[in-house]
Amino acid sequence: MKLRIGVIGTGAIGKEHINRITNKLAGGEIVAVTDVNQEAAQQVVTDYSLNAKVYPDDDSLISAENVDAVLVTSWGPAHESSVLKAIKANKFVFCEKPLATTAEGCMRIVNEEIKADKRLVQVGFMRRYDSGYVQLKEAIDNRVIGEPLMIHCAHRNPVVGDNYTTDMAVVDTLVHEIDALHWLINDDYESVQVIYPKKSKNALPHLRDPQIVIIETKGGVVINAEIYVNCKYGYDIQCEIVGEDGIVKLPEPSSISLRKDGKFSTDILMDWQRRFVDAYDVEIQDFIDSIQQKGEVSGPTAWDGYIAAVTTDACVKAQESGQKEPVALQEKPEFYQTFTTVEK
Amino acid sequence: MKLRIGVIGTGAIGKEHINRITNKLAGGEIVAVTDVNQEAAQQVVTDYSLNAKVYPDDDSLISAENVDAVLVTSWGPAHESSVLKAIKANKFVFCEKPLATTAEGCMRIVNEEIKADKRLVQVGFMRRYDSGYVQLKEAIDNRVIGEPLMIHCAHRNPVVGDNYTTDMAVVDTLVHEIDALHWLINDDYESVQVIYPKKSKNALPHLRDPQIVIIETKGGVVINAEIYVNCKYGYDIQCEIVGEDGIVKLPEPSSISLRKDGKFSTDILMDWQRRFVDAYDVEIQDFIDSIQQKGEVSGPTAWDGYIAAVTTDACVKAQESGQKEPVALQEKPEFYQTFTTVEK
Amino acid sequence: MKLRIGVIGTGAIGKEHINRITNKLAGGEIVAVTDVNQEAAQQVVTDYSLNAKVYPDDDSLISAENVDAVLVTSWGPAHESSVLKAIKANKFVFCEKPLATTAEGCMRIVNEEIKADKRLVQVGFMRRYDSGYVQLKEAIDNRVIGEPLMIHCAHRNPVVGDNYTTDMAVVDTLVHEIDALHWLINDDYESVQVIYPKKSKNALPHLRDPQIVIIETKGGVVINAEIYVNCKYGYDIQCEIVGEDGIVKLPEPSSISLRKDGKFSTDILMDWQRRFVDAYDVEIQDFIDSIQQKGEVSGPTAWDGYIAAVTTDACVKAQESGQKEPVALQEKPEFYQTFTTVEK
Amino acid sequence: MKLRIGVIGTGAIGKEHINRITNKLAGGEIVAVTDVNQEAAQQVVTDYSLNAKVYPDDDSLISAENVDAVLVTSWGPAHESSVLKAIKANKFVFCEKPLATTAEGCMRIVNEEIKADKRLVQVGFMRRYDSGYVQLKEAIDNRVIGEPLMIHCAHRNPVVGDNYTTDMAVVDTLVHEIDALHWLINDDYESVQVIYPKKSKNALPHLRDPQIVIIETKGGVVINAEIYVNCKYGYDIQCEIVGEDGIVKLPEPSSISLRKDGKFSTDILMDWQRRFVDAYDVEIQDFIDSIQQKGEVSGPTAWDGYIAAVTTDACVKAQESGQKEPVALQEKPEFYQTFTTVEK
Repeated sequence: MKLRIGVIGTGAIGKEHINRITNKLAGGEIVAVTDVNQEAAQQVVTDYSLNAKVYPDDDSLISAENVDAVLVTSWGPAHESSVLKAIKANKFVFCEKPLATTAEGCMRIVNEEIKADKRLVQVGFMRRYDSGYVQLKEAIDNRVIGEPLMIHCAHRNPVVGDNYTTDMAVVDTLVHEIDALHWLINDDYESVQVIYPKKSKNALPHLRDPQIVIIETKGGVVINAEIYVNCKYGYDIQCEIVGEDGIVKLPEPSSISLRKDGKFSTDILMDWQRRFVDAYDVEIQDFIDSIQQKGEVSGPTAWDGYIAAVTTDACVKAQESGQKEPVALQEKPEFYQTFTTVEK
Repeated sequence: MKLRIGVIGTGAIGKEHINRITNKLAGGEIVAVTDVNQEAAQQVVTDYSLNAKVYPDDDSLISAENVDAVLVTSWGPAHESSVLKAIKANKFVFCEKPLATTAEGCMRIVNEEIKADKRLVQVGFMRRYDSGYVQLKEAIDNRVIGEPLMIHCAHRNPVVGDNYTTDMAVVDTLVHEIDALHWLINDDYESVQVIYPKKSKNALPHLRDPQIVIIETKGGVVINAEIYVNCKYGYDIQCEIVGEDGIVKLPEPSSISLRKDGKFSTDILMDWQRRFVDAYDVEIQDFIDSIQQKGEVSGPTAWDGYIAAVTTDACVKAQESGQKEPVALQEKPEFYQTFTTVEK
Repeated sequence: MKLRIGVIGTGAIGKEHINRITNKLAGGEIVAVTDVNQEAAQQVVTDYSLNAKVYPDDDSLISAENVDAVLVTSWGPAHESSVLKAIKANKFVFCEKPLATTAEGCMRIVNEEIKADKRLVQVGFMRRYDSGYVQLKEAIDNRVIGEPLMIHCAHRNPVVGDNYTTDMAVVDTLVHEIDALHWLINDDYESVQVIYPKKSKNALPHLRDPQIVIIETKGGVVINAEIYVNCKYGYDIQCEIVGEDGIVKLPEPSSISLRKDGKFSTDILMDWQRRFVDAYDVEIQDFIDSIQQKGEVSGPTAWDGYIAAVTTDACVKAQESGQKEPVALQEKPEFYQTFTTVEK
Repeated sequence: MKLRIGVIGTGAIGKEHINRITNKLAGGEIVAVTDVNQEAAQQVVTDYSLNAKVYPDDDSLISAENVDAVLVTSWGPAHESSVLKAIKANKFVFCEKPLATTAEGCMRIVNEEIKADKRLVQVGFMRRYDSGYVQLKEAIDNRVIGEPLMIHCAHRNPVVGDNYTTDMAVVDTLVHEIDALHWLINDDYESVQVIYPKKSKNALPHLRDPQIVIIETKGGVVINAEIYVNCKYGYDIQCEIVGEDGIVKLPEPSSISLRKDGKFSTDILMDWQRRFVDAYDVEIQDFIDSIQQKGEVSGPTAWDGYIAAVTTDACVKAQESGQKEPVALQEKPEFYQTFTTVEK
């Protein structure tokens, strides 16, 4: 019996997940879609030859009896409401980041899920499913490098659009590191600081680019994260964890090597989607399989969504103040104590 | 509508493909299984919760009306017969290597498929679906390195069992290079020669290990292929194509790097199955998708199976003679002229 | 005619340079030595079969008529006095770091050299002569990566002795980066900040280790420098410069690769002396050749020694204050404007 | 006291060694030069400001009382005669390859040196002094990879001149591998075979390029050596030794890495002289030091020169015959039994 999935929001990422579930993964089928643009939703049904009903809104889709689980792939400000409805309807829900646009919104979801007393919510932080990050996590958990002390990481895009603003560097870009890093080292964030290097000539006038974010954890780990979204040369994700007794580092994406014209080279990806395409597949397959096999989701929790919101809030404040800003997390609820890592 | 698949042979590789189709890939379902050991076949149905009927033999499975396509994963000597029956029944068939145990057997399949006038047969050479090989193929086809002149490759296993014999080094091991290399460079083999280096102390008394096979193509490319199946250190596949203007080389499998104890290291796989696990997935998904979307299979053809058989025969002869032996291929039938590469 | 050299201080580094000049390099000869331990000085003459006179002190050595140039390899607090005497005697002088133990002391040397109106003083910052740093410098100067924006670097030692204190992390260790980085990017330092990550269990109780130093330049480049002197795994120097249009990175020291026991590895040096042994040779040969060929020294200037002193002072202050501290450099004298880089 | 050196042949390589000894190395001085072109010899004395006498011929130079050692850097056909004269005069002699143009010529030198009963002759095979080869040798001698079984190597030049002929691929190019490989594995050659791949469009009409040489040793090691002297992309030396338990491989020359324009790259040298420049320095310094310290040369012996001659002869024969040809070495004289490796 397949997991019957409804999709709220049939834009780019919604279509990708629909395609993935329909044509690449096992165990799920799209039975319902909705979008603020009803025609677009209908078009998706046609384009992907779905055997799915188009619903007028998220309420009706969520309450449909044949919908076991929903994907929330609408625009950010609509996420919280849909997720809360899904929890109340006791439906499993996969929500793309952000879980909610405010920390308070995330907390409302957290509390609703605790009330439901069941892991229903998975947040779309796909890095935890990337083969390289999984290897890093295993190495750290197996204490291959001893206690982590420092993390050096970088998030580089070749270029961003006109509508990309300075705060998006942390809210939309660094947020992936923010989720992945506390998971990697099983730690919580204490404070953040933002330093602006000389601005790149490649950046538009309104944008501070690059940025360096210094994050300190409660355990004393110091993270320095470079964000450079107009680096031109490629989409490049770097992550290196320095432990007491050794260092582990994320691999470069696999690529054939070339000797030609006096250069020994490999290609760097220009496109972020290709970098994590496998991770997206594993992530959604895990969503389907966990529900089917355990009756609960696994992966990043609503609490992880809350952590991301509080931490990005602190980063935005630090962008403005130039000071070290605290990351004021509430105490972690008992309910989430055991859901810290991806199941292996 | 899913592709309804029957599986002939429910041993290790059969179970893997059943699991793959059932739990990892989209578009296919196992509806029929058979095995010389009927209990084993029944057990597989139970273990994987299949909604599949157990048939007493390949004839009955192939002729079942609800079977659209068959996977032949029985032992080698049984392949030819099952494949011929499938073609005669106008069913699509994916056959693990070898297509047949003799060149004549492969030719009978080739002729049967030509008679059917439809691409029904795909042979299980999964390397063509490996990301690294696909990149090599693209680079060569795009003439990034000019005309290929030489290939240096190696196929190394950490260890082999007692039943592994000297001829298996070419028939079971090198056969993957034999298929992949002529596909990579769009060329045909002309002759083969086998040289035995000093025998490794790691090899059992009855086995010549390592071996070096020199293959020359009709186009003049010289391939030197090292086979070393008791190398201890890992499962390691190397392939480097030297062209007129540059060199392309297969990447190492993606792995985190570690700095520890005076060493900068990455892990080498010890297990061949992990090396090509993604390629197997892509291969079977391609089998399903090609049938569903084009009404024909793509990927390695029966003719490719014939090439592998003739070439490994020549290698075995060269192992014994110590001489350069011709690879006596018949002329390529018109029918196969256009089916040379994986569709992109 | 060889350059006749006197050596002040015949400890470890003094002996190395004596050996280098006598047995590895061309154009120089040791004609005079002195040490506070006269017996040690005499022993060196014997051990290296030098045709050299032992002097009672630096004054007498410097004023010896047959001494063309002096190497100051005594302990740090004695450097300033010997260098000043050498300048006054119009002798060329190569001084190991620190040029002087205070910024004021460095400035006295600067002023004395300006008064002499001749480049007499070279400071022993050997990284500028390391092949990797030279390549980085060329790439940056040739604008291969556009304007530098950020530098990520690390200075790691396997272990340090009991007498290594927290301030030595900047004064003795980071000082090499401090000299090399402003030279690499042709910029001056503006401020420094020190962050202490969780302390490593490998560090002795009295020592803060690791440390992260954030340096901002007048031009807006942000440097984050990791110092970890009990990292156990090796002596490891990393340096990566992120420019507007690309990134250049220091190579790993050249080492054969090994595939064995499931690992693909290269060796990491455990010993700092082997890391820069070639750079030391090139450095001293350049000292000899510049004098012989141009009648002036080249390489790091007294002003560079002053920069190092002021910057390490600011770092020590930042270690204590936890705040961002200014690097209060005086204006660069006209005299040093043209002596910014190693001659190629 | 410096080693007083006379140079026979002041062409390109002669000038390089003169410059090296005069301006880069310690312990030697050029006191005598000769050349068939006396003006050229005189010009070199002027250009390098040598305190050296120009002799009319090799006889007079060799017999000069103040000449302790000679470098033979004349053209190949003149080597044998000068070396024989030097031995008879009991002078140390460093001879660039070839030691003699025939195996018989080499044997005459061998016999003369045995008669002198003193190691007087060093042949200019500089690879043994290259850091990478030295590391390979250490790893093999320390049995890091167990018994060597196979060697894969390549010698690639970007381009060669019009006068480069097919036999030069072995006589002038592969000869360096021929010397280095038997030294690396402490073995002797048994047979050689040459295979011609498709000819590169980059090669001139008269030249077979690339070539593959298969060499088998008495111990059963199989070497496959690629020679491609018009590969365009760079000067590239590859060497990988496959042992029973692991593989060691020569490193790429040290180079900064660059991320730019979608490529992660390092530079490949275009110029062979830069590849082994350090090895040349170490080689000549070792020649000087060994004489000064031990009263004998070390490094490649006259017997090694003989091995190179016999092996390249067999290769040329194999180029013509297309067959496997024996490497018919005489028995190694007792005298050379102990001079197999570079002293460490």
